[in-house]
Amino acid sequence: MLKISNRGHEMPASPIRKLVPFAEAAKKRGTKVYHLNIGQPDIETPKQCLDAVKQYDMKVLEYSHSAGNESYRKKLVTYYAHNDIDVTPNEIIITTGGSEAILFGFMACLDAGDEVIIPEPFYANYNGFAIQADVIVKPISSSIETGFALPPIEDFEKAITPKTKAIVVCNPNNPTGYLYSAEEMETLKQIVLKHHLFLFADEAYREFCYEGTHTSAMHLKGAEEHVILMDTISKRYSACGGRIGAFITKNKAVLDAAMKFAQARLSPPFYAQILGEAAVDLPENYFDTTKAEYKLRRDTIVKRLNAMPGVFCPNPGGAFYAMARLPIDDSDVFCQWLLESFDHNGQTVMLAPATGFYSTPGLGKNEVRLAYVLNVEAINGAMDCLQAALLKYPGRME
Amino acid sequence: MLKISNRGHEMPASPIRKLVPFAEAAKKRGTKVYHLNIGQPDIETPKQCLDAVKQYDMKVLEYSHSAGNESYRKKLVTYYAHNDIDVTPNEIIITTGGSEAILFGFMACLDAGDEVIIPEPFYANYNGFAIQADVIVKPISSSIETGFALPPIEDFEKAITPKTKAIVVCNPNNPTGYLYSAEEMETLKQIVLKHHLFLFADEAYREFCYEGTHTSAMHLKGAEEHVILMDTISKRYSACGGRIGAFITKNKAVLDAAMKFAQARLSPPFYAQILGEAAVDLPENYFDTTKAEYKLRRDTIVKRLNAMPGVFCPNPGGAFYAMARLPIDDSDVFCQWLLESFDHNGQTVMLAPATGFYSTPGLGKNEVRLAYVLNVEAINGAMDCLQAALLKYPGRME
Repeated sequence: MLKISNRGHEMPASPIRKLVPFAEAAKKRGTKVYHLNIGQPDIETPKQCLDAVKQYDMKVLEYSHSAGNESYRKKLVTYYAHNDIDVTPNEIIITTGGSEAILFGFMACLDAGDEVIIPEPFYANYNGFAIQADVIVKPISSSIETGFALPPIEDFEKAITPKTKAIVVCNPNNPTGYLYSAEEMETLKQIVLKHHLFLFADEAYREFCYEGTHTSAMHLKGAEEHVILMDTISKRYSACGGRIGAFITKNKAVLDAAMKFAQARLSPPFYAQILGEAAVDLPENYFDTTKAEYKLRRDTIVKRLNAMPGVFCPNPGGAFYAMARLPIDDSDVFCQWLLESFDHNGQTVMLAPATGFYSTPGLGKNEVRLAYVLNVEAINGAMDCLQAALLKYPGRME
Repeated sequence: MLKISNRGHEMPASPIRKLVPFAEAAKKRGTKVYHLNIGQPDIETPKQCLDAVKQYDMKVLEYSHSAGNESYRKKLVTYYAHNDIDVTPNEIIITTGGSEAILFGFMACLDAGDEVIIPEPFYANYNGFAIQADVIVKPISSSIETGFALPPIEDFEKAITPKTKAIVVCNPNNPTGYLYSAEEMETLKQIVLKHHLFLFADEAYREFCYEGTHTSAMHLKGAEEHVILMDTISKRYSACGGRIGAFITKNKAVLDAAMKFAQARLSPPFYAQILGEAAVDLPENYFDTTKAEYKLRRDTIVKRLNAMPGVFCPNPGGAFYAMARLPIDDSDVFCQWLLESFDHNGQTVMLAPATGFYSTPGLGKNEVRLAYVLNVEAINGAMDCLQAALLKYPGRME
């Protein structure tokens, strides 16, 4: 019989995108849908970056180097230096989005049956990459009560087995918005050193920290051989469609292995490398405006949420996500109901059920993730809808 | 101990790129190197495609749909219809190059330990994708004596085991340039139907057929559920750096599984989708000029090769590669020697040792692949070098 693979079966459908048909149906009915469900920023891509692509002259759109254009990697060194991250062009492999950097990390460091520890809730697509690499995700739970702080070291110790080979840390965190402190990063360092683990650091939201400063895994002295930075320009410069990221490590063996995966797919996309290179030359204060805008949105959404009876939203220190606990029975049912059976003056809101971000069954049933990627007016409109919805929802719990 | 993965170890370094340091050293010494080693065409990317990207206005470089822009997929339907391939936009997933289409196919259809049969010599990166998917490549040998025609059906039957789940056919073939006939494609159809196998069809060079016509795997009536087309615009429009390909199948279960892999990596690169969309509107006769140019080059290189004593080069029917048997002891040694220890009036030539394209150890030791991606003058210059080199090479065999 002609059958698809088991991994094809096991591969999870995107938990964020599964509600899309319901949103489309709502729009067809004439309902306005506020999209707080995905991390697609509305912030404009810097014009000088878009212009750099427009103005780039070439005769042949050639393969770039498998590690990415050398000129871009050289330029990135300055960007990282500016973030106190000391790397050379040869320690950087330009990837097709942060996604490919994650896949390269899993492939180069982990074998079938190996285990990777990830504090949950976590970015749902880690599951997909784990299935592609035939790797087992071992979640340890963080809690909305602590604002999703790093779980205590004992929880890591309990989860570590002889099969454990890595920990993933996403900082600032998607989906929680939590910004790990220098102390928490130091804790992670101690764990990976003690147990000889890799530390995969997804720092897609590095620039968006509203409380305190960002501690990169690359700052951890003495853990250089352990750390693999999985980076992307998608959120930084509102350039998600470019599909440009970076795989960075000082571990030569890992870098050499990742380079072989990079060679097999020939090269990263050419065009957005031009965009990424131009982005490094943006004025010093470029992030100030963007950050101020996101901070305003965060303050708005957190305030609105906590003002609703029965709702709790810890104040996220970074990224552009907030997690909220709602007085509901089931976030999957609720988010579908919002699109299918509810409107508030012809409007509704699309949220991401938190269940998709937890690996442990049953967790996240009364939580949702909100991406504050819309302007304050739209956020207020969305919060008006949510507030009205929570009063009407048949599955409301007290 | 902190160790990379076994698959990281097993992953082959690119056989085509491993000679690069020797080429760089030769250039530093002032030697001109003719690059016949890689499939990077010198043909200009159509100006109207490059212009389409330059003229595309946007405010935000957003993620595209995980399956690629709908407008592009709709447009592609016309392109395929023009090639007698009947598909709908929903049967197409735009991929990051043909590479990702191959990876999606392996991941969606094959599990760890499954076997895929590939006539050798074959595109070396299939090995890399097989290792990523933990799949075993079972080569069956084709021979330079027959111009690399499809091996007899008995050879397939002998290679098939209960673990066999797919056959890969690259048509026209990289590295041999062989164009499979309608009868040979029919043979493959009979095999996949009889043994319930998938047929992965890599048709990157569809447009470049110089003798006879192209039979797509998508033309095989009654095998619709079995066929997965892995396509790319890289060679077609000389747009390798764009990293745009396509995964196409009428098998709904396979398509749905592949879509989950596509969702995990969010979207294909945006920019080159614009380029690809514009390419479908190129004038009817666009390929005539390119094809005529490649045919002239092929005629030149094949004639020059066969005129050298002890050299045999079958006439390739398609793509832009030729395989030649040389009177040498070891193609790896010879190709390195060409760069390291030889020059002809300050010039030399870089070739791909055929060993990298064979899976069976020992095969291809007296064969090289030549990519005729340079103009006729350069090809003649390169052939002058090769002719002189074969007379001087210490490892010459009669």
